[in-house]
Amino acid sequence: MTTQMIILNGGSSAGKSGIVRCLQAVLPDPWLAFGVDSFVDALPAKMQASDAGIEIAADGRVSVGADFRALEEAWIEGVVAMARAGARVVIDEVFLGGAASQQRWQKALGDVDVLWVGVRCESSVAAGREVARGDRVHGMASLQADVVHEGVIYDLEVDTTHTESLACARTIAAHVS
Amino acid sequence: MTTQMIILNGGSSAGKSGIVRCLQAVLPDPWLAFGVDSFVDALPAKMQASDAGIEIAADGRVSVGADFRALEEAWIEGVVAMARAGARVVIDEVFLGGAASQQRWQKALGDVDVLWVGVRCESSVAAGREVARGDRVHGMASLQADVVHEGVIYDLEVDTTHTESLACARTIAAHVS
Amino acid sequence: MTTQMIILNGGSSAGKSGIVRCLQAVLPDPWLAFGVDSFVDALPAKMQASDAGIEIAADGRVSVGADFRALEEAWIEGVVAMARAGARVVIDEVFLGGAASQQRWQKALGDVDVLWVGVRCESSVAAGREVARGDRVHGMASLQADVVHEGVIYDLEVDTTHTESLACARTIAAHVS
Amino acid sequence: MTTQMIILNGGSSAGKSGIVRCLQAVLPDPWLAFGVDSFVDALPAKMQASDAGIEIAADGRVSVGADFRALEEAWIEGVVAMARAGARVVIDEVFLGGAASQQRWQKALGDVDVLWVGVRCESSVAAGREVARGDRVHGMASLQADVVHEGVIYDLEVDTTHTESLACARTIAAHVS
Repeated sequence: MTTQMIILNGGSSAGKSGIVRCLQAVLPDPWLAFGVDSFVDALPAKMQASDAGIEIAADGRVSVGADFRALEEAWIEGVVAMARAGARVVIDEVFLGGAASQQRWQKALGDVDVLWVGVRCESSVAAGREVARGDRVHGMASLQADVVHEGVIYDLEVDTTHTESLACARTIAAHVS
Repeated sequence: MTTQMIILNGGSSAGKSGIVRCLQAVLPDPWLAFGVDSFVDALPAKMQASDAGIEIAADGRVSVGADFRALEEAWIEGVVAMARAGARVVIDEVFLGGAASQQRWQKALGDVDVLWVGVRCESSVAAGREVARGDRVHGMASLQADVVHEGVIYDLEVDTTHTESLACARTIAAHVS
Repeated sequence: MTTQMIILNGGSSAGKSGIVRCLQAVLPDPWLAFGVDSFVDALPAKMQASDAGIEIAADGRVSVGADFRALEEAWIEGVVAMARAGARVVIDEVFLGGAASQQRWQKALGDVDVLWVGVRCESSVAAGREVARGDRVHGMASLQADVVHEGVIYDLEVDTTHTESLACARTIAAHVS
Repeated sequence: MTTQMIILNGGSSAGKSGIVRCLQAVLPDPWLAFGVDSFVDALPAKMQASDAGIEIAADGRVSVGADFRALEEAWIEGVVAMARAGARVVIDEVFLGGAASQQRWQKALGDVDVLWVGVRCESSVAAGREVARGDRVHGMASLQADVVHEGVIYDLEVDTTHTESLACARTIAAHVS
């Protein structure tokens, strides 16, 4: 059976996007990469700060509204359709709802073969990397570090606290069939 | 009948992405925006300069390989699936193959209701805007200005040579049902 | 006498940065480009939202604190020193304080030969371009369109309402000696 | 004596910019941050690929021409002038010429009080981080890892191979007077 999708889940500043780029470099086939950031970029600017869209509080807490949720569901279906159509797809996600977020994907995935990967990073280290990235909303890394993994089931977990992105990517790539 | 997708086609620096952002601002419903740029961003970095991926010559000429074409086909199917799943989607495209490019979309679209929009801009004006944007590969705007429209059939055309993005967006929005 | 600096002043979304890139393209000598945006990028992230730094209200109103002002003064002196050291420098500024802002530059400039350029754009057109750029803080373009020019004395004014960046740049370049 | 400038030197992907942002966060005073990247951004686009400007070969080797060198000298003088005018300034540099590059700064610095910091990273780790960043020109990290330190004299060295940016920044901050 061929792995059609890799779904990485982890908190902000856990190092997911670096792992994704390394996966795209080390995997022999070309993989498309999407994620919560590319989805948010696709939204109207006006949804960045409205009840129906996404809101990031001063402490880094993120809340999303009904329009966001409806568009996200359609986006998930579309990304899964790309995999069904033959593209291999790696996804960089932040499961703010933990197990409930994973279930939203599972509902759309059907029999698509997915490798589920948890990306962990010690909260204090992720918070430090958030400072190094210069993001203006501090606190997201700490707030999300654990909650995004609650109840989520993985095939594999990597931890970027003491392991480089490229090494994590190689570990993941070894599980791709 | 409800317009499910808007597909804008035009050459580099014709002003498509500005029109897309204005459409997202003026249309009452939230629309997702994707395009050739977001697709290229999803590709592995190594496909940016390889025979199987995309190559931009010093004069701005763009060529794509077999892997690019296969992934693009899957990406198109996925974007159309988002529309079928209820999201309204606006696409910003550059039909390097003219009518053949449009047919690739039509094959995937089936009975999805699309508004086809040609975005024109006089070649010399587009070339000037390319300089103003500071892109390093000059010449794309001129090369693409006419060729991308060859044989393509539109519901509507706008011309950014003397008309602002917002006004073009309002014209397009008036055709959305 | 050789023009050592060009200082462009205009409101947000008036088209200054496009003109700067065109000037760098059409002027035969290499010119360094700096401006209020590159200055703000050089500030600590924490000054983006503090009384001592810069604050952008929801309506686009910008206020700056004492630390900002002190660093800006040193930055101006440094940029003028580059011109004295032989680099030709083009500056992209937003004189929120009108004539008072110009005087801050004049104090540092001494006998450096400057071409002062006002960049105008009709408020409604600038507001439309702000939407097209997808900036999240709407209203800056309108608020700043006129106030930044109050009491400022120019060698030359250009208006981007109906004139392309490249044409404006050529007009300016013709005044560079 | 008060430290007026901090100059960090290290190869591409050694982690300098992350350290700079952490320094700006942990140092009690506001520090301005500039570096080779902000200087290159200030150059005309046409100097990105010309004999007089900067050229990056396919293997990551960087060469610069006479115009680049002249503008860089003026830029260095200007940045030093900012420090003389009272701003505290942190610089992120890549001394492609090793000791000769340091001397270019020393010539301009006079009696300005500088903390010289070497930023090291094992070549293989830096190369992996280059992949994680998705840079299209691979090889710069390896090529530059050692050569940029040849003959350069530091007050302090940090190594990002096994130490986070924030911890490196705290070590450096402890040496700032």
